[in-house]
Amino acid sequence: MFHRSVRIIATGKYIPPTVVTNVDLEQKLNLPSGWIEKKIGVFIRHYAIGETQSEMAAKAIRDALQSVNMTMEDIDCLVGANGAMEQAIPSNAALTKKALGLEKVIPAFDINSTCLSFVVAMDLVSHMVAAGQYRRVVIFSSDIASNALNWEHKESCILFGDGAAAVVIEREDNPRGPKIVASKLATYIEGAHLAEVKGGGTKLHPREYRETNKTDYLFYMEGEKMFRLSMKYIPDFLTDLLKSANCKMDDITMLIPHQASLTAMKLIQRKLGIPDENFMLTIQEYGNTIAASIPLALHDAISQGRVKRGDRIVLFGTSAGLSIGGMVLEY
Amino acid sequence: MFHRSVRIIATGKYIPPTVVTNVDLEQKLNLPSGWIEKKIGVFIRHYAIGETQSEMAAKAIRDALQSVNMTMEDIDCLVGANGAMEQAIPSNAALTKKALGLEKVIPAFDINSTCLSFVVAMDLVSHMVAAGQYRRVVIFSSDIASNALNWEHKESCILFGDGAAAVVIEREDNPRGPKIVASKLATYIEGAHLAEVKGGGTKLHPREYRETNKTDYLFYMEGEKMFRLSMKYIPDFLTDLLKSANCKMDDITMLIPHQASLTAMKLIQRKLGIPDENFMLTIQEYGNTIAASIPLALHDAISQGRVKRGDRIVLFGTSAGLSIGGMVLEY
Repeated sequence: MFHRSVRIIATGKYIPPTVVTNVDLEQKLNLPSGWIEKKIGVFIRHYAIGETQSEMAAKAIRDALQSVNMTMEDIDCLVGANGAMEQAIPSNAALTKKALGLEKVIPAFDINSTCLSFVVAMDLVSHMVAAGQYRRVVIFSSDIASNALNWEHKESCILFGDGAAAVVIEREDNPRGPKIVASKLATYIEGAHLAEVKGGGTKLHPREYRETNKTDYLFYMEGEKMFRLSMKYIPDFLTDLLKSANCKMDDITMLIPHQASLTAMKLIQRKLGIPDENFMLTIQEYGNTIAASIPLALHDAISQGRVKRGDRIVLFGTSAGLSIGGMVLEY
Repeated sequence: MFHRSVRIIATGKYIPPTVVTNVDLEQKLNLPSGWIEKKIGVFIRHYAIGETQSEMAAKAIRDALQSVNMTMEDIDCLVGANGAMEQAIPSNAALTKKALGLEKVIPAFDINSTCLSFVVAMDLVSHMVAAGQYRRVVIFSSDIASNALNWEHKESCILFGDGAAAVVIEREDNPRGPKIVASKLATYIEGAHLAEVKGGGTKLHPREYRETNKTDYLFYMEGEKMFRLSMKYIPDFLTDLLKSANCKMDDITMLIPHQASLTAMKLIQRKLGIPDENFMLTIQEYGNTIAASIPLALHDAISQGRVKRGDRIVLFGTSAGLSIGGMVLEY
């Protein structure tokens, strides 16, 4: 067990104003009315129009800081935890520092594990904060999925939305206070190509973009296979995670899953026997917002009063790679 | 000071076989003979042809592991520290796990601060290793610059090469043994757009690629401005870094800079009064290999016997963002 005494002192979010309803998408895709809700349980999602990831991140960060009457002047380090890059170079964190107009000289860098980036960033950065290297850190997740959707692939294009969330953490001096109790990340080679965007990087440069290979630059997902692979490993993974935190599912006030798919989440919930009040669902309102999904759900759980100080919560999910990751923390 | 008792137990490298000489480039670019060497001090660089970053990474990792008779079965965690992404999704680390054919289930994720990714990754991951979360970690940097060069921009296109390096670290139990003594990272907003690749991410999707905007998808650098901005902050930055390590430049056996530009490095060396034997230069052979630059130079310094157990060394450099970063460690 590697307890780290770290307190989440603030959370914030930014959701782009453009709402895309199921009716909008059912018309666009020639789907029968009600098909999308029935298939994936999402009611609406939001698309970023004319906004960048860094601009959205800056708004989520300001929302978090304002809630505790702070500004970026109170922050030591800025960490990006996104699933997508805004530009190939530099990091989203450097661009977000620019979008914030932050002259103060602090470190800015990214941590990337696709949809699990936030959990991995919390895991890594909490060590630095607990050790005293940084006093107060902002971790943000801001993702735009909407411009890399494959409209020929109905199952995935209806699922995603855009959004941003930010969390401020600081060192906790009370050993009985908030802490990260346990964390775990596992990457399974057999899922390396089940969810990907092949193009855009060094392997398939944008100059190679053609009408014939254009889907290589869009999000591709073998949903069914990913689902089966995840379900094969998730129950044991969660058992191990809770065991290393020395607790049982009954001790958990709120399980906050990556909002990947309502069907998959509901199945996990049923399999583990978790009551609705202990299981956070936001996918209906946001869709799957890639890395922003978990911190957005965390923010909503806290601001709706569903998570209170002293509660044990679990952040948990899957990501392209294929990785399964989770964290038990005392809020 | 935040000492972390961590030992570098192995290093390795992989350099793609295709050598590109100054003569090759002078012919291609219609430059007078000898112009490139005089301008930037690089003799040769290597280009990856038909190879991916993950394949190169796998070779560098195997090189490191073989040097200590280990395999990936001995490793707990795989961390990518690159400047460029191979694909938009998933992480380079997940793709490298696949390239290694590694069935063993361990975490794989990326840390990105462009050319400083390796230093930032060492900084973050060493906390986890020192805390006992992972016993033995591979950090790799594998970058392909050659396919995003702007051949109209002579100053930058002649500078870059491709390459990969890997380092294996583990927890050190002897408090007098190897350790990270101090580290520092600083991001300066005024340099956010001095080095970048605007396209390829969510802001400028590959589908927008046109003859008229094609340079937006290539590496852009305001070399002169970057140089002036770096030189403005580097001397104080290094003074602070050494102070936080409680040592002077005389105590440092080897300063290993990011091989950004020979002119800039020579100027820093002269300004700080560092003798040639304490200053590692590899740019002549490799060019600037983005994030692979520092671990490649570290590997060569160790394998050439220029760095020995117990020596104090400094890893140091600048990256797009603009960031300045450094680390003092006892090898």
